[in-house]
Amino acid sequence: MAGKLIECVPNFSEGRRQDVIESIAANFRGVKGCSLLDYRADADHNRLVVSLAGEPEAVADALIGAARTAMAAIDMNAHQGAHPRIGAVDVIPFTPIRGISMEECVALSRAFGERYFAELGIPVYFYEESAKRPERKRLEVIRKGQYEVLKVESVTPERQPDVGGPALHPTAGATVVGARQFLVAFNVNLNTADEEIAKKIGTFVRASSGGFCHVKGMGVALSERGMTQVSMNIVDYQKNALYRVLELIRMEARRWGVEVVETEIYGMIPAQALLDSAAYYLQVKDFDPDQVLELKLLGMGDGAE
Amino acid sequence: MAGKLIECVPNFSEGRRQDVIESIAANFRGVKGCSLLDYRADADHNRLVVSLAGEPEAVADALIGAARTAMAAIDMNAHQGAHPRIGAVDVIPFTPIRGISMEECVALSRAFGERYFAELGIPVYFYEESAKRPERKRLEVIRKGQYEVLKVESVTPERQPDVGGPALHPTAGATVVGARQFLVAFNVNLNTADEEIAKKIGTFVRASSGGFCHVKGMGVALSERGMTQVSMNIVDYQKNALYRVLELIRMEARRWGVEVVETEIYGMIPAQALLDSAAYYLQVKDFDPDQVLELKLLGMGDGAE
Repeated sequence: MAGKLIECVPNFSEGRRQDVIESIAANFRGVKGCSLLDYRADADHNRLVVSLAGEPEAVADALIGAARTAMAAIDMNAHQGAHPRIGAVDVIPFTPIRGISMEECVALSRAFGERYFAELGIPVYFYEESAKRPERKRLEVIRKGQYEVLKVESVTPERQPDVGGPALHPTAGATVVGARQFLVAFNVNLNTADEEIAKKIGTFVRASSGGFCHVKGMGVALSERGMTQVSMNIVDYQKNALYRVLELIRMEARRWGVEVVETEIYGMIPAQALLDSAAYYLQVKDFDPDQVLELKLLGMGDGAE
Repeated sequence: MAGKLIECVPNFSEGRRQDVIESIAANFRGVKGCSLLDYRADADHNRLVVSLAGEPEAVADALIGAARTAMAAIDMNAHQGAHPRIGAVDVIPFTPIRGISMEECVALSRAFGERYFAELGIPVYFYEESAKRPERKRLEVIRKGQYEVLKVESVTPERQPDVGGPALHPTAGATVVGARQFLVAFNVNLNTADEEIAKKIGTFVRASSGGFCHVKGMGVALSERGMTQVSMNIVDYQKNALYRVLELIRMEARRWGVEVVETEIYGMIPAQALLDSAAYYLQVKDFDPDQVLELKLLGMGDGAE
């Protein structure tokens, strides 16, 4: 594993035919510099979500291969599923993990989008940090009306693809490509059964009601346990560190004599998101992630390379 | 990088001749599965300290090669230096990092010691967790009187090597091999210039005066900064977590109205030592280190292997 490490979670519009799912995933197996962390197909959504991590070039190469497989097997005109989608390969997000900046990931996604259309003929929309039009930062704007509407409207100036088009690919549709921050799913459980308290705290902490700019969240009941939860997505863990979010919630909860019982981290999390909190609470001066043995190892690569 | 990850910090009795130092280090370069993290030679000590991390087999193979180089270049009868030593390769400690237990590291060190003598003819003493005699847990017991005394006394039952001997190797002496925990250097700085307070807290926290069983420590003045420091080595960070040590010190300091200004982590630290503290302070329920993207990557190895 060399210096630059990204995560990539491509979404494919196939969650039912096991042979197609496996043939797409096969493109990510045994690839030097690209690790297949996980893949999950959902039949209702008729969608496959793949988690990759690795070096930018290796990940990009494997993605082109997987897109070729998906394109050959999936006809969007016959596709049905509960999840919104516009293409056989629906979304390809690139996320910086280590040794690579967001700016570099944007450049990577833009170059990938150009190559993707050149090699496969599938038009590309850029979203999130890579958006070329501000409104296209939001995935839902690009996917409005889904494949069925977009294949008609893509010829209009407002909806034409950023690369290729204006017509979509006749069977594979279009693909949304972009760079975005790693999303951390972080929940804080409170020792009160009063859902109103969790909901109020949710409004204090989230961006949409004036809280931290990179936190999405809401209060929910955990009825079986007699507790409530502030359930959050932290969309930029570098700007809104976990400890800061937790301590704000703890402080707000005090008003009602409510305490934090526990927290939950769902799914994967970059080491830095936890190290930042460890360094804060332990008050570590001048902490360098390269002091962490495993991160140093990942950063320097295998001795044989 | 495969599932089992160890650290190894072999010490060689050469800190002056640059060509010898480089020829020893060369054994650890470009070795698949073994990364050379660092190496430092000290002329006064006349000693070379190498930091390695990697898969047990790859590290062991590289060590045999390096020992062969050291053995050919170093004559203990002509060696002088400030640091205690008994051999051209003085100490080889194996430390478990991930996917390997202390018991496995003990077995690894024992098998390595047998192989080491069989291939090189240098007798071996086992220390720390690998000691076959309780008193030999302590390195200073094995090295008492250093090479000059040991080469005479090694024929006595009390001092004979655990593998090979009783005579030491005529030029390379003997080597101490064993498994031990990773040592974390952790300092806590206090906002008082009163050295007595730091010294007292040092006695509360350290094992030798009844504190935590795996903490060594003392209070020292940081005169230039008008602060004092509880300077510690945590010799088992899994049993004496950093957060527990810090919070005990904070609590004791309160008696004098003294507060913790900052802490320092010196040198390398395993990810788990920081994740344990992050999980404590963030109150994370059922946290699994495999949720940390980089650790998962290290654990699964490169996709191409």
